[in-house]
Amino acid sequence: MSGPRPSPATPEAIRQALEAIVFDADGLVPAIAQQHDSGEVLMLAWMNREAVAETLGTGSVCYFSRRRQALWRKGERSGQRQALVELRLDCDGDCLLLLVDQTGVACHTGRRSCFFRAIRDGALETIAEVEIDPKELYGE
Amino acid sequence: MSGPRPSPATPEAIRQALEAIVFDADGLVPAIAQQHDSGEVLMLAWMNREAVAETLGTGSVCYFSRRRQALWRKGERSGQRQALVELRLDCDGDCLLLLVDQTGVACHTGRRSCFFRAIRDGALETIAEVEIDPKELYGE
Repeated sequence: MSGPRPSPATPEAIRQALEAIVFDADGLVPAIAQQHDSGEVLMLAWMNREAVAETLGTGSVCYFSRRRQALWRKGERSGQRQALVELRLDCDGDCLLLLVDQTGVACHTGRRSCFFRAIRDGALETIAEVEIDPKELYGE
Repeated sequence: MSGPRPSPATPEAIRQALEAIVFDADGLVPAIAQQHDSGEVLMLAWMNREAVAETLGTGSVCYFSRRRQALWRKGERSGQRQALVELRLDCDGDCLLLLVDQTGVACHTGRRSCFFRAIRDGALETIAEVEIDPKELYGE
């Protein structure tokens, strides 16, 4: 995997990305966040055009919250930010892979990755520990 | 990452998985496929309840094709199958992470991963080569 490239994308690069991405009927595209060096898949969230442009323009990952119907600057409340290392598109242009450098934990439960449950030995098991108390992440 | 576990899941494990997964209004959930040992993110596709049950029950990954509105047994035509190593759920239950052992290439373009385009140096670049000619994968 490539090393960190913290520099913001140029307007031309943002234009090319937005032209290549196929947004769904709601104007959204799923984005997978992967820790750039360890390869750990951290989470999946959604982006609209504005979130893609802001993420590329600032180098700090911004999603679109479907629940709140608003931009969601990852880590804005919790401090657990994601620095963009590289944005990739899949063959159909309808999914993004974000190589990121995750500060602390990605999951609102205080775990490093949101994928902390697995089918193992015939049952659904929790396979990762809480690293930061969510109270600490989001206040009382 | 854990090593390969090729054994099919028990009916009880399948029941627990289906109970925990939050399918969307179309009865689908996005599933990320990641090569279990290298950590490479290969693709994202969708599953319905039947696809999840078949994948866990057989140990061979089966998606739901939104275009064809039918089960899509990965590699059925191309031979490029995905053996399931482990199925994981995210915190909200609305996304799956499949740790797989990918035979050959995951992408219909003949590339190992579908995420072969990246924003680099101000432009959208192709960052991976075709490994198998698609004609070879799908016939004439």
